[in-house]
Amino acid sequence: MIGVSIVGGTGYGAGELLRLLHVHPEVEVVEVVSKSSAGDDFSSSHPHLAEVYCDKFVDHLDLEKLSSFDKQFVFAALPHGASAEFVLKMANFLENGGVVIDLSGDFRLKDEAQHCANYGDSPFLPEVRDQSVYGLPEFFRKEIKSAKLIANPGCYATCCALAAGPISKANVGIEHIVFDAKSGSSGGGRGLKDLFHHPRRNGSMTTYSVLSHRHEPEIAQTLSASGGQQTSISFVPHLLPISRGIFVTAHIILEKEATYDELCSLYEKAYASEPFVRLRKSSPEIADVVGSNYCDIALHVRGNVVVVTAVLDNLVKGMAGQAIQNLNIISGLDEKAGLGSLGLGIV
Amino acid sequence: MIGVSIVGGTGYGAGELLRLLHVHPEVEVVEVVSKSSAGDDFSSSHPHLAEVYCDKFVDHLDLEKLSSFDKQFVFAALPHGASAEFVLKMANFLENGGVVIDLSGDFRLKDEAQHCANYGDSPFLPEVRDQSVYGLPEFFRKEIKSAKLIANPGCYATCCALAAGPISKANVGIEHIVFDAKSGSSGGGRGLKDLFHHPRRNGSMTTYSVLSHRHEPEIAQTLSASGGQQTSISFVPHLLPISRGIFVTAHIILEKEATYDELCSLYEKAYASEPFVRLRKSSPEIADVVGSNYCDIALHVRGNVVVVTAVLDNLVKGMAGQAIQNLNIISGLDEKAGLGSLGLGIV
Amino acid sequence: MIGVSIVGGTGYGAGELLRLLHVHPEVEVVEVVSKSSAGDDFSSSHPHLAEVYCDKFVDHLDLEKLSSFDKQFVFAALPHGASAEFVLKMANFLENGGVVIDLSGDFRLKDEAQHCANYGDSPFLPEVRDQSVYGLPEFFRKEIKSAKLIANPGCYATCCALAAGPISKANVGIEHIVFDAKSGSSGGGRGLKDLFHHPRRNGSMTTYSVLSHRHEPEIAQTLSASGGQQTSISFVPHLLPISRGIFVTAHIILEKEATYDELCSLYEKAYASEPFVRLRKSSPEIADVVGSNYCDIALHVRGNVVVVTAVLDNLVKGMAGQAIQNLNIISGLDEKAGLGSLGLGIV
Amino acid sequence: MIGVSIVGGTGYGAGELLRLLHVHPEVEVVEVVSKSSAGDDFSSSHPHLAEVYCDKFVDHLDLEKLSSFDKQFVFAALPHGASAEFVLKMANFLENGGVVIDLSGDFRLKDEAQHCANYGDSPFLPEVRDQSVYGLPEFFRKEIKSAKLIANPGCYATCCALAAGPISKANVGIEHIVFDAKSGSSGGGRGLKDLFHHPRRNGSMTTYSVLSHRHEPEIAQTLSASGGQQTSISFVPHLLPISRGIFVTAHIILEKEATYDELCSLYEKAYASEPFVRLRKSSPEIADVVGSNYCDIALHVRGNVVVVTAVLDNLVKGMAGQAIQNLNIISGLDEKAGLGSLGLGIV
Repeated sequence: MIGVSIVGGTGYGAGELLRLLHVHPEVEVVEVVSKSSAGDDFSSSHPHLAEVYCDKFVDHLDLEKLSSFDKQFVFAALPHGASAEFVLKMANFLENGGVVIDLSGDFRLKDEAQHCANYGDSPFLPEVRDQSVYGLPEFFRKEIKSAKLIANPGCYATCCALAAGPISKANVGIEHIVFDAKSGSSGGGRGLKDLFHHPRRNGSMTTYSVLSHRHEPEIAQTLSASGGQQTSISFVPHLLPISRGIFVTAHIILEKEATYDELCSLYEKAYASEPFVRLRKSSPEIADVVGSNYCDIALHVRGNVVVVTAVLDNLVKGMAGQAIQNLNIISGLDEKAGLGSLGLGIV
Repeated sequence: MIGVSIVGGTGYGAGELLRLLHVHPEVEVVEVVSKSSAGDDFSSSHPHLAEVYCDKFVDHLDLEKLSSFDKQFVFAALPHGASAEFVLKMANFLENGGVVIDLSGDFRLKDEAQHCANYGDSPFLPEVRDQSVYGLPEFFRKEIKSAKLIANPGCYATCCALAAGPISKANVGIEHIVFDAKSGSSGGGRGLKDLFHHPRRNGSMTTYSVLSHRHEPEIAQTLSASGGQQTSISFVPHLLPISRGIFVTAHIILEKEATYDELCSLYEKAYASEPFVRLRKSSPEIADVVGSNYCDIALHVRGNVVVVTAVLDNLVKGMAGQAIQNLNIISGLDEKAGLGSLGLGIV
Repeated sequence: MIGVSIVGGTGYGAGELLRLLHVHPEVEVVEVVSKSSAGDDFSSSHPHLAEVYCDKFVDHLDLEKLSSFDKQFVFAALPHGASAEFVLKMANFLENGGVVIDLSGDFRLKDEAQHCANYGDSPFLPEVRDQSVYGLPEFFRKEIKSAKLIANPGCYATCCALAAGPISKANVGIEHIVFDAKSGSSGGGRGLKDLFHHPRRNGSMTTYSVLSHRHEPEIAQTLSASGGQQTSISFVPHLLPISRGIFVTAHIILEKEATYDELCSLYEKAYASEPFVRLRKSSPEIADVVGSNYCDIALHVRGNVVVVTAVLDNLVKGMAGQAIQNLNIISGLDEKAGLGSLGLGIV
Repeated sequence: MIGVSIVGGTGYGAGELLRLLHVHPEVEVVEVVSKSSAGDDFSSSHPHLAEVYCDKFVDHLDLEKLSSFDKQFVFAALPHGASAEFVLKMANFLENGGVVIDLSGDFRLKDEAQHCANYGDSPFLPEVRDQSVYGLPEFFRKEIKSAKLIANPGCYATCCALAAGPISKANVGIEHIVFDAKSGSSGGGRGLKDLFHHPRRNGSMTTYSVLSHRHEPEIAQTLSASGGQQTSISFVPHLLPISRGIFVTAHIILEKEATYDELCSLYEKAYASEPFVRLRKSSPEIADVVGSNYCDIALHVRGNVVVVTAVLDNLVKGMAGQAIQNLNIISGLDEKAGLGSLGLGIV
């Protein structure tokens, strides 16, 4: 049995971890830490968990409680910055075989200048960072297997990297990739903000952080890590009037014309044995993956213009589900353990 | 020409007044007061008004600016409590022929106990209250004509009173009326609250203030003012996953059976010459009235059970549109002046 | 292992059965019949099942294929009328120990006059009907255990019966119950209809079948079967601008005043050991149960007016999930087998 | 007074024309033709027009009825193909000074090969086509003034051309423009289609006609007509889970770097005196323009990547509102006549 504790219990990340871990056959949730809500039922923050989890939030992590488990994981579901501080204190736990899966962006960027530009309030901590592995299984499964500290990828970054990865890795000349990304509002987290006030978001759409979102360098890093050469990209995130799900349209401008068949075979090879990537013959719908850990992808080609469409649930494959997929890999379990739920199809 | 100034400029009430008054042929908006946003463009709070209104919020009301107009109106779009305080300071203005239309609930309830129970933070001010007229034209048009201070009705209260009024006024024995009311989220105002966070509201529905909402005594007051006898009512508000619009289902349990035709004729008589009430043969859709000042109503009868369905736009007939309708009545204008826009039909 | 075949494969009922059965540890889906789509992948109708089910629809049921399983179930997910015809042909299968779970309304109503008035195109078939059990576990678990033919309850009927059952069963005088029910659009099924055209439904709300919906006699039948006395009820269904989920507001007018505590204890007793009914302290949200088999219920009391709010997912507890719950009961499995998924919370 | 008749009365185009013309001070709606619904109230197809228009659909156009008006317009709101046939019969009307505004795509494309590839069921009719003017006032106002036959632009094409036009016209080297366009479902029209079934569209998103939508050559034609040089473009339309509104994100890859200020001045010059184009400092929201004839545009620049975001209401500026704007131009009226309504802001 695997013991899991969670810090940062009131946010959407923790709520989704608890929802998913409830059906994981090999995991026991040991405790959930929330300083602000210590003593409260989980359902005070996550009403859908009412009566399912009967424990209360605790105000600090007690690693003793994890010690009886064969494998010990701590999920950090903290804000950027707070997470780095927390991980710093976990040195002993990591040395003794424990694993930390960090849902924040604190350890995602390898380049110090990029990190500081995008996460200015979070220390770079090079020694800790060097130990961390970027937890995108489709690209770094081998490194993940032996990781002690997982930097769990961003939701957009996961979807964009999976959409463009196989072309980027191949020896195909790319002029530029436009990532036009659309997300449900839960990506903005639980904190109240005017942009996420229901009367404003409902029935509407807008962009934010145009050409300046911190998932852009994260995408670039993944593509160049896997492909070698630097690709020119631009990333524009949009807010959809839905809560869950991401739709990415990757417009890839090639140097030369290509055919659907040759590009499709790149994707088939890349994802043939991937448990959570499905190649689809026509553009997927967000609803196809809501509630599931799948990322569905389709290709369209005309001359030198390639359009890759990809969907995932930002709270599952884009966050908590991917974190559990990482736990499964590290623990040597079936990668699908606890992640068998299919997309709702109708949302 | 009629001069209008607005206090409380950043809220949804002011935004909607400005939107509607833009097409009013007889009104000029003189100034809009917002203490918190003085000096800012209107569009800082109301981006849909960009370039249409080029003035900026001012930090206090300058009644001098209104003095050149034949008719002078001030719309108070302030929070409950703040509005009462504001009206208190307007005694001179009212004495000199000015009119205040108060969008808050501060002067709606005539009964002191009811007022204090529901608006505890707002003083009762009996002398001011005695001058005020409850601005529901379909019930109190005559009183409105000569009013100096209008207590503009609540959105739910308007829809419920219009739905049940004709039966309540008639000599039909009523056992009980259940008002099951459903509202879009803009009814909750611009202030950020967890209940109105988009990821929570979208795709969901719940109730709030069950059997304890302050529009319930307001409805009871209107029905008894018009009908004489006290009717037993209960009111349950729900939050719909939309921004605009109210749907009220009034379940009226009669003492005896009635027929569709006899009840329908009550409604036809009551609303025959009403410019903004439409009797419909089947249940209306919220979309039919969004953006317009209409309240659409339909009747269903089976034995002693009557179901009246009614829709309106909570920001128009439920607030700013009704306020302008009151202005038109007081000013002797066509009641439809500036309110000619039809519902969008498709929202 | 339990063998399951499904007839009527392209509808929402079959799609949801397949989605849920995918994670059921004791069930194997043997074949899925669709006359109209025989030879097509399941994903042609249910894209969210792509690559998960690799079989194709067949054009007729082959009971031989089920014969190797210890327990054999056929789920009929056919339109009203077609289902009765189908069940009639399954006499041998039923005699030989097979079980049919019928998702249609063909066998729900016990009273012939009621049946004919509401399902005029469907034969009454008294002998078959007599064998059928109404599959609402919270009321008829004992009968379900040995049933051969399950009339799986309607979505509204499930939610209303669970909301009002404990009061109805108790010795509390009830004047009248108003069921004001609100449903997502998937309740209308996969067939295209103007009422369910997206541009019309989105952002809007209306009623349909006011005081004439066929779930009303179904609710009355359940309440009187369980409580003995006939209760005066009225039922009004509404269409919400969402796809999944039902919200029922049961307004119960009592003959005498009651207290929250005494009524609450009725519900606690009724549902103490129910695996899928959760009593909540405040009104639940639809989002709390979307994707899950839960029905969440809360009570509000003022004098003689009781308001019970209840939510469920119309495609799960209101259809396919409840069908699987019935399978579990009949098969002697843990009632939660395959139904462990929690509500999404954020939809 | 201007007389207007409409053919194709039951579709969304006619509904929106009627909604908008109701507040047009100089227009009288003479008759509305619908073969399929002749004899029915307008409200049978457009319930939001109930009691406002009391006429019924007629089964054929009676031009005599228009003859008493100073200016005579016929709006063709017919399907593609049917519109060309209809216009062919209007030769006399056009010769006698009447004007036809065609909402279909039948006369939009000037190039025969493009027309046939995209509107294969519609005859090319070169002589009629030569008389037609593409009714995008911001580009072709001068030609519109004296036009007899207006090819009213497509919704996407309007938004994309307004978004990219000023850069395209300028002497700035453009590598490629990606138009990533997102539309509400009303763009698909009133006809029932599986893709527009509410349970499927709600809470979801997908693409359609990727790199093969017929608005793409229309956009290319407008940009090259205005700019001279051919621009490399690609166009991908998406379906949003809303009914009204379009959001276009134009990703413009320049040959060289540019600054925000220099590009912004191009837009300021182009649109300085345009009554319905608003330049915004940050990305607009769809809600800002819903119900109005505005197109709001914002610019973002980083190096050689320019992102232009633009919104409009597909039924207003993208269809009926633009048609009325064309009527106003041709009639010598204030271009804003009847189009004064502001966007709802909250939808």
